[in-house]
Amino acid sequence: MTTAGAGAPGAASDDARPGSGPSRRSLLRLGAAAAGGAAAALAGRGAWDAAAAAPAPAPVAADAAGRVTVPFRGARQAGVATPQPAFVALVALDLVAGADRDAVTRLMRIWTDDVERLMAGRPGLADTEPELAQVPAALTVTVAWGPGVFTAAGIEDRRPSWLAPLPAFAVDRLEDRWCGGDLLLQVCADDQVTVAHAVRVLTKEARTFAGVRWVQRGFRNSPGTVAPGTTARNLMGQVDGTRNVDPDVEPHLVWQVDDAGPWVRDGSSVVVRRIAMDLDTWDELDRVGRENAVGRRLADGAPLTGAHEHDEPDLDARDALGFTVISDAAHIRRARTDDPTHRFLRRGYSYDDTPAAGALSDSGLLFVAFQADPVAQLVPVQERLAEADLMNLWTTPVGSAVFAVLPGAREGEVLGQALLV
Amino acid sequence: MTTAGAGAPGAASDDARPGSGPSRRSLLRLGAAAAGGAAAALAGRGAWDAAAAAPAPAPVAADAAGRVTVPFRGARQAGVATPQPAFVALVALDLVAGADRDAVTRLMRIWTDDVERLMAGRPGLADTEPELAQVPAALTVTVAWGPGVFTAAGIEDRRPSWLAPLPAFAVDRLEDRWCGGDLLLQVCADDQVTVAHAVRVLTKEARTFAGVRWVQRGFRNSPGTVAPGTTARNLMGQVDGTRNVDPDVEPHLVWQVDDAGPWVRDGSSVVVRRIAMDLDTWDELDRVGRENAVGRRLADGAPLTGAHEHDEPDLDARDALGFTVISDAAHIRRARTDDPTHRFLRRGYSYDDTPAAGALSDSGLLFVAFQADPVAQLVPVQERLAEADLMNLWTTPVGSAVFAVLPGAREGEVLGQALLV
Repeated sequence: MTTAGAGAPGAASDDARPGSGPSRRSLLRLGAAAAGGAAAALAGRGAWDAAAAAPAPAPVAADAAGRVTVPFRGARQAGVATPQPAFVALVALDLVAGADRDAVTRLMRIWTDDVERLMAGRPGLADTEPELAQVPAALTVTVAWGPGVFTAAGIEDRRPSWLAPLPAFAVDRLEDRWCGGDLLLQVCADDQVTVAHAVRVLTKEARTFAGVRWVQRGFRNSPGTVAPGTTARNLMGQVDGTRNVDPDVEPHLVWQVDDAGPWVRDGSSVVVRRIAMDLDTWDELDRVGRENAVGRRLADGAPLTGAHEHDEPDLDARDALGFTVISDAAHIRRARTDDPTHRFLRRGYSYDDTPAAGALSDSGLLFVAFQADPVAQLVPVQERLAEADLMNLWTTPVGSAVFAVLPGAREGEVLGQALLV
Repeated sequence: MTTAGAGAPGAASDDARPGSGPSRRSLLRLGAAAAGGAAAALAGRGAWDAAAAAPAPAPVAADAAGRVTVPFRGARQAGVATPQPAFVALVALDLVAGADRDAVTRLMRIWTDDVERLMAGRPGLADTEPELAQVPAALTVTVAWGPGVFTAAGIEDRRPSWLAPLPAFAVDRLEDRWCGGDLLLQVCADDQVTVAHAVRVLTKEARTFAGVRWVQRGFRNSPGTVAPGTTARNLMGQVDGTRNVDPDVEPHLVWQVDDAGPWVRDGSSVVVRRIAMDLDTWDELDRVGRENAVGRRLADGAPLTGAHEHDEPDLDARDALGFTVISDAAHIRRARTDDPTHRFLRRGYSYDDTPAAGALSDSGLLFVAFQADPVAQLVPVQERLAEADLMNLWTTPVGSAVFAVLPGAREGEVLGQALLV
C-alpha cells in the first residue's frame, strides 16, 4: 500500500490511513499516463504530426452566442474591423534570447494553425483541454509584432518607421510592467472561458520561442445586456467611443491600403495604453463638472451643444455670457484637430483589477487604437491631450506599447510569411 | 490665463501654450462643481437625505439579459439559491479600528438601502455613476459577517460556533492576502460592468466603517454561450459541479431552517477557498490519467462507470482484472462519504489573473460553498480530500475564509437588525 499523493506538493502522507490511498495500480496507471502525456506534448508540435493531435472530444452544447465564429482567413486579420466582443486579453511576449528568423517563422506557423483552429471552435493541434475550444463565442486572435521581431529575424529593413515607443508625454507615469514587448496577441471573445483557454493554448505553444511579458484583461457589457449599437460606458460612467472611425468607410485610416507605405499592404498598427482612473478624486466632481470636463452629457453622451449622442459638437457655440459652451480644455475639443487624418479606430475596454493594499479600486481603461500610421494619426492627438485636457486630472497613462499588425493569412499562408522569406 | 491642469498630477504646465488651456471660467466652474460634489458626498449619506440623492439619469437601453432583476426583499438573501450568473466579485472588508455596534448598524443600513436599489437596477443613494446602475443583469449582493463583526458589535453570544477559520489541512499553502475578513460582499451579475459598479458603490459607501481586505474576481461562461442547464467546466477542462445540492429539495443543507441551531433562522454560511491550479504539470497528464484522477470522463462528465453526466457512480465496479474502475483516490470517490449531511451547495467560479513574472498563467478556482454548518457538513469532506485526492497533485488551496450569511431583509428591515438590537 502506498500513501496518497506521494511526492505531491502538500500531500498529507502523515494522515493517510491504510485503505484510504490510491491503489498501486492507480498510481501506476497515472504514472504511465503522465509519461505518455509528456512525451506526446514534446513530440506533437515539432513534427506537425497529426497523430499527436488531441482526440476529437464529444460535442459541447454551445448555445447561439457561443457558436458564433469569425473567419480567420483573408487579406486582413480579424479583431480590428470585426465587431468588438465583450472581453479582451492583451498578451505581450518577449522572444527568448537567441531567437532568430527560423524561430519567428516556426512560431508564426504554430500560431497560424492554432488561431485558425480556435477561431473555428476547434481545439488547437496539441490542445490539452479540447472541450474548452468548442465555444468560440466570436473569438478573434490578432497577431502583431514589436520592434524586437524585426531585429531577431534580421529584417530591420522591413520595419515600419513608426514602430517605436510613442514619444514621452508629460502626463505619462509609465510602469515597465505594462510597456513594450516583442509580440502581441489580442484575444477577444464574448466568453471569458474562451479567452482564458485561447491565451493558455497560444502562450503555451509559444513557450520555446517567447515568454509572457504582460497580460492585460478588459471587459465591456456582456452579450445581450445592452441594446445592439449602444456605445459602451467606461467606469467613470461616460459614454466613450461615440466618434470612431468606420473602417469600411475610411479603410485608409486603419489599414495600409497600398504597397507604397512604410509597412505592408493590409497591415496596420496597434497602440495599447493602460490609462488608470483615479475614481476617488473623480467622485469629488459633480455632474456639471464631469460634463464640462468631457464636453458631453453623462445621461446620453450628447455633446453639450447637441441633443443626441451622434450630433456634431458645435465648438464655437457660446452661452449668454459669451463663454464657449464646450470648454477650451474639454476632452472632446482637445481630441479634435482640423486635420481629418488625425483619427484612428478605438477598440478599448475597461479594466478592474485587484486593488493595492488600502485602496478601493484599481480601475481604468485599456486604450486600444488601430491606425495605418500611429505617428501621423495618433501622436498629434495624444500631444494635444497631454498638453491640455481636463480629463488629465483624473486619468494617468501607466502603460504604453506599439505593435505592427500583420496582414491576414490567406488560404495556405502563414502569418507574416511575406516578411520572413 | 492659467495653464491646463494646474496642480493636477502630471499636468503638462511646461508645455502649455497661451490659448491652449482652459479658460478661467471653465476652471472656476470646475472648481465650484468639485466643491459642490464633495459637499454633497459628505452630506448625503449621514443625513439619509433624499435631496442629496443623485439625479435620475436618462434611461439606458438595457437589452433582455440586462434587464433581469432578482428580488432583494425576503426571508433569505439572494445569491445563494438564486441562479448563478456569469461573474462574481468576492470582496472581504475589515472594520476600521474602534468600529462598534453603532458603526456596524449604520453600515448595514447603508448596504441594505444600496443593495436593494442596485439589485432593482436603480442607482445607489449617492451614486456618482447612476447610468452604470441601469443594467442590473441579474445582480445579486449577498452580505456575510466574519468573526470580527461579532466582536466589534459586542454580540459574541450570537456568534455561531462554526464561525472560525477552517482547520488547517495538510494540502494548504495559504497566503494571508487571500484569507479572513470581517465582512464579505458576494457580488454576482451577468455583466462585468455591473459587478464593477456595484463593488465600487458598496465599498465606497462603507469607507467610513470598513476598508477592503481582498477582492477575488471570477467567471463562468457568458449568458447565452452554452445551453441552459449545462454544468460549467473549470480551466482544467473538467465538468465541475455535477453533484450539487438543490436548495429547494434539501433546504436544511443550505440554510439554518429553525431557531434551534447555532446561528439564526434563514441564515447560512459561506466558505471561500482560492484553489490554484498548476496547469503546467496538469498538461503533462494525458486524458486517461486526467479521467482517472477525477473519476469522470472529460468529454461529458459521466462517471467512469456510467454513460451520462448525472449517472450515479458505481464505486464498487471492477474491471476485468479486478481493480476498481473508479480509483481509490479519485476525486469523486474521496469527495463522498456515507453520511448524507456531508454535502453543501457549491457556487464556484474560475479565475485567471495576471501571471507572475516568468509564469504563463495564474489560474484556478474560486471555491464558494454555502451550507447550514460548515464544520458539520464541509470540513469532513475537506479532510477526506486533503488526506487523499489525486487532484491534490495539481491543485493547491492558497486562500480560505468563512463568513456567516445573514438572513434576508424583509420589507422595512435592515440586514442583520435582529442581531444588532
